[in-house]
Amino acid sequence: MVVKVYGPDYASPKRVMVCLLEKEIEFETVPVDLITGENRSPEFMKLQPFGSLPVIQDGDYTLFESRAIIRYYAEKYKSQGTNLLGKTIEDQGLVQQWLEVEAHNYHPPLNNLVLHILFSSVLGFRRDEQVIKESEEKLGKVLDVYEDRLSKSRYLAGDFFSLADLSHLPFTSYLVGGVGKEYMIKERKHVSGWWDEISSRPSWQKTDFK
Amino acid sequence: MVVKVYGPDYASPKRVMVCLLEKEIEFETVPVDLITGENRSPEFMKLQPFGSLPVIQDGDYTLFESRAIIRYYAEKYKSQGTNLLGKTIEDQGLVQQWLEVEAHNYHPPLNNLVLHILFSSVLGFRRDEQVIKESEEKLGKVLDVYEDRLSKSRYLAGDFFSLADLSHLPFTSYLVGGVGKEYMIKERKHVSGWWDEISSRPSWQKTDFK
Repeated sequence: MVVKVYGPDYASPKRVMVCLLEKEIEFETVPVDLITGENRSPEFMKLQPFGSLPVIQDGDYTLFESRAIIRYYAEKYKSQGTNLLGKTIEDQGLVQQWLEVEAHNYHPPLNNLVLHILFSSVLGFRRDEQVIKESEEKLGKVLDVYEDRLSKSRYLAGDFFSLADLSHLPFTSYLVGGVGKEYMIKERKHVSGWWDEISSRPSWQKTDFK
Repeated sequence: MVVKVYGPDYASPKRVMVCLLEKEIEFETVPVDLITGENRSPEFMKLQPFGSLPVIQDGDYTLFESRAIIRYYAEKYKSQGTNLLGKTIEDQGLVQQWLEVEAHNYHPPLNNLVLHILFSSVLGFRRDEQVIKESEEKLGKVLDVYEDRLSKSRYLAGDFFSLADLSHLPFTSYLVGGVGKEYMIKERKHVSGWWDEISSRPSWQKTDFK
């Protein structure tokens, strides 16, 4: 049974796709068009009552929220593909910690940059320069913490690639790409090295150019 | 070795305390005063580089982010106290899903209500009626999804109390208390029954009146 990943081929659904590639799990994507509001259709809302993406279907099991889905597969197939959780319970705790940092500190200002710089016209809302300025400042401060952390540790949770690093891939790819703020990564030596390393993984290369 | 929980005796540190009580783990609290900015002191920032609370110290292991800490203890002491993760990997996936819903759909509008109604004067910022109105509407829509879910399932992730339910306790307690919006829970039959059940657990009774 092949896992179905509902979503467009961008943004948070990619968090799931790159995880499935790391775990060597076969999947197919089911396109859902956010621009035409397909994610708000009654049929889709039966799968995901908030109208958000991605959603997976694995046989008769349905799961949503990208960071829940990647935790589920990392746990279910612990010994298949890359171990994305670390070896000890303490490692796992740090993976969870940095996953939460990604969700609560890193993602919100980055998401603002992505929405206001890349998607405001296609989604039909006003690009707000003040939001862009404040978000850039906030993200810079978060990246200063990352720089310090990554000067002592090869990856965020320790010396192993994990869900915590993986979760940064889709939106950081926007930051250094369409958002046009590559300098934020490049001017921080350890963040830059970390980004080069995680973004050159075959799983991400395959996902990003899909 | 007793676990140290850094934080004030309110808000997200309570998420950790109620979890430790459910898991029958001994702990002591170390007060950190947010009002005087103790969480921004260089000493505290060594423990938590973003200046957020809570943080735990367990021997020489330090961990921050409340939802990472509760996942860590639920996993580490799986068979001690209440099982907060469910029995199967699929249950665990649903626990993760509803924990993410709490973090990303439920908490942000509720946190706005708490900040603007309860804490704006003490934290020295302007109470914004527009934010209050919009947050109340958003939270209402999330609670409609909960009402539907809880009409089919005793708890959020299934027929067992889990981290997903527990994570709602501290801020929902504000909603029905100081925020003065108890009607949002009471007017939804299944949400109301669920709230009565989870908030009457001995662990929460002990935490809430601590």
